[in-house]
Amino acid sequence: MKYVLGAQCVKCGREYDAVPDLTTCSCGGILDIVYDYAAIRRDVSPRDLEDCRDYSMWRYRPFLPVEADSAPTPLRVGWSPLYPAPRLARALGLKALYLKDDGQNPTASLKDRASALAVVKAREAGADTIACSSTGNAASSLAGNAAAAGLSTYIFVPSRAPKGKVAQLRIFGSTVISVDGSYEDTFALSKAAIDRWGWYNRNAAVNPYLSEGKKTVTLEILEQLGWRTPDYIALSVGDGCTIAGAWKGLKDLYAAGFIERLPRLISVQAQGCCPLNRAIQTGTPWTPMAENTLADSIAVGVPRNPDKALNAIRESDGIAVNVSDDEILAAMRLLGRTQGVFGEPAGVTGTAGVKKALELGLISPDSTVVSIVTGNGLKDVQNGIRAAGEPMLVRPELDALLDAFASHGIAP
Amino acid sequence: MKYVLGAQCVKCGREYDAVPDLTTCSCGGILDIVYDYAAIRRDVSPRDLEDCRDYSMWRYRPFLPVEADSAPTPLRVGWSPLYPAPRLARALGLKALYLKDDGQNPTASLKDRASALAVVKAREAGADTIACSSTGNAASSLAGNAAAAGLSTYIFVPSRAPKGKVAQLRIFGSTVISVDGSYEDTFALSKAAIDRWGWYNRNAAVNPYLSEGKKTVTLEILEQLGWRTPDYIALSVGDGCTIAGAWKGLKDLYAAGFIERLPRLISVQAQGCCPLNRAIQTGTPWTPMAENTLADSIAVGVPRNPDKALNAIRESDGIAVNVSDDEILAAMRLLGRTQGVFGEPAGVTGTAGVKKALELGLISPDSTVVSIVTGNGLKDVQNGIRAAGEPMLVRPELDALLDAFASHGIAP
Repeated sequence: MKYVLGAQCVKCGREYDAVPDLTTCSCGGILDIVYDYAAIRRDVSPRDLEDCRDYSMWRYRPFLPVEADSAPTPLRVGWSPLYPAPRLARALGLKALYLKDDGQNPTASLKDRASALAVVKAREAGADTIACSSTGNAASSLAGNAAAAGLSTYIFVPSRAPKGKVAQLRIFGSTVISVDGSYEDTFALSKAAIDRWGWYNRNAAVNPYLSEGKKTVTLEILEQLGWRTPDYIALSVGDGCTIAGAWKGLKDLYAAGFIERLPRLISVQAQGCCPLNRAIQTGTPWTPMAENTLADSIAVGVPRNPDKALNAIRESDGIAVNVSDDEILAAMRLLGRTQGVFGEPAGVTGTAGVKKALELGLISPDSTVVSIVTGNGLKDVQNGIRAAGEPMLVRPELDALLDAFASHGIAP
Repeated sequence: MKYVLGAQCVKCGREYDAVPDLTTCSCGGILDIVYDYAAIRRDVSPRDLEDCRDYSMWRYRPFLPVEADSAPTPLRVGWSPLYPAPRLARALGLKALYLKDDGQNPTASLKDRASALAVVKAREAGADTIACSSTGNAASSLAGNAAAAGLSTYIFVPSRAPKGKVAQLRIFGSTVISVDGSYEDTFALSKAAIDRWGWYNRNAAVNPYLSEGKKTVTLEILEQLGWRTPDYIALSVGDGCTIAGAWKGLKDLYAAGFIERLPRLISVQAQGCCPLNRAIQTGTPWTPMAENTLADSIAVGVPRNPDKALNAIRESDGIAVNVSDDEILAAMRLLGRTQGVFGEPAGVTGTAGVKKALELGLISPDSTVVSIVTGNGLKDVQNGIRAAGEPMLVRPELDALLDAFASHGIAP
């Protein structure tokens, strides 16, 4: 790991060697991987990436904490499309909008980036079994990436996890423990089991390597924009690991001289479960909340990575916006109809937040915004139907079709 | 369309100009797009592709029937991963196996390739509305690609279509007509409506451009293999359009001098609905069958493109294999557990057929085989759960977990 200096606690500053099975600090704080940016700046430039034909997250190896001789994971993770979204921008009254569709990853969410990194680190640690607790996407991404690499997995999900995610887990051959309780309960049980059996720990707020995988989403966004920094990057926030990773990627690029300025983050949470945004909005420490939202991936009442997440929002001079479940469902329809992108509820929450921030006057219509779609709508079909409604059922006769069109007010 | 000479009926040989709204021959036969391969051979080489940074189906423009000034479609279609599958090959007792995961397309199936082409041709024809009937994937891919391009869609699906596909259609803003009948009924109603309202026709067996989009899957496979021809390419067969397209792509490459020999095709159908394979196996003309399979995408009792499909299998000296629904479900588990790939039932039917062909001694264990995964398992979660089972439900206590492990025979 040529450019990795070590790890440092974000709470007490204590330093650690970057061993593969690193977890949290003895003070309970979360660790951050530290790089030698001067060396990266000396050795690596955007020009090197132009010549790189590896269109996956592994094109950013100088920025990743993996050994030089560690093979990448088998599934093709990363380099998801960044779509210009002119029709959606017009609908929102925004100058320029891009959608980073991370639902196009192998198991259909951004979490593949973290899980691929976890698989590499587990191999480096000599482990053959990985475990995690998850609201769903971290779980299915770990299950898929581990199966592809020939590793076993134990996965803890709250019993409310959508069927699509559970089906993925089972198909990928994980031992799946569906926990009859909240995400908080699920996390606690996974911790007890990991302590007991010594599995490699892929809990994103415990293992500091995971947000290093997640940061590749912003490395890609900036490369895909030709290293022109947008005004804002919007994304949904649950545990806090993804926004922490996104910010780390941006700071990496800035420190390595790839970009000249940093964007501001838009942290979007569901109004029924927004402990981190509430802390930002009120300027007080975060406190737990109930998990009242249909966006299961961000229904996290006790975020596991609050320090890094709050740092990211504050350091970026970021904006915290909360959206209702109805606004999330409306965003699902809007992305689908204007741009052909189907996101799961938490996947479109970032875009719902962009709309809300515009309505509240928090951002200017002259802005250039990138909204990250963090997961595919096929993972949660029930809420897709809830957002868009059932189709009309028609007997196979033209007269029946004419009647159905008339009764639905459709004039072809 | 520099290299397109025109279109020709596969039945009577009559020739047509390649206008954008081309449908079937006056004799009822299906048309095939004809290229000037000598000119392609003169102008284009694998070397040109090495320099091409467009990692989508549009990298193959010299082989595609679109105008030089036609913009590609907004969604990133094609260049899906080709995964070496060593663990699965070992499980099957096969020398070398690759999985072409076309479930990684924007709307999660191979059909995006055809729909992207349909959107370009509809625009060239000046149409603003496209219609099709489909078992599901053609529909959702058309809905997504058209929405991204700002076109309207009318979509006819049989009411049995899985919820995931229907949710996609509704989210993408299509007018969806769920037909209370078979695929045959659905196709007939769509035809009547298209005749009445003059929408651009995306029915794959009517519009000859669509298999030209589908053929990009084999163009990619061969490029990804470094132009080394595998012994076999296996895929599931319903309407017959996909296998016809796959074969067209291979013949294109051979005629243009990109490859030195052609692979043999393995046509896999569900044994409860195998009218095309039955015709191959018995050497008699095809006749309709019932639609008795859980693999909805290939539950096609009256295939709409039998001539091109049967030609493809015969010309390639191909193999016809039928598999049971249980074998399809087993293949879902096998792909997931060994390679981290989650296919829908019809998506893994090709691989189920490879297994069956080995068991029957139809192909040698020394073969190199590519199996195309035509659609993502998230489209049909119900059958995913059916294949892999429900997870264990556990109270959030370590003792409860120990009990559950014991009762499931799990010893971590």
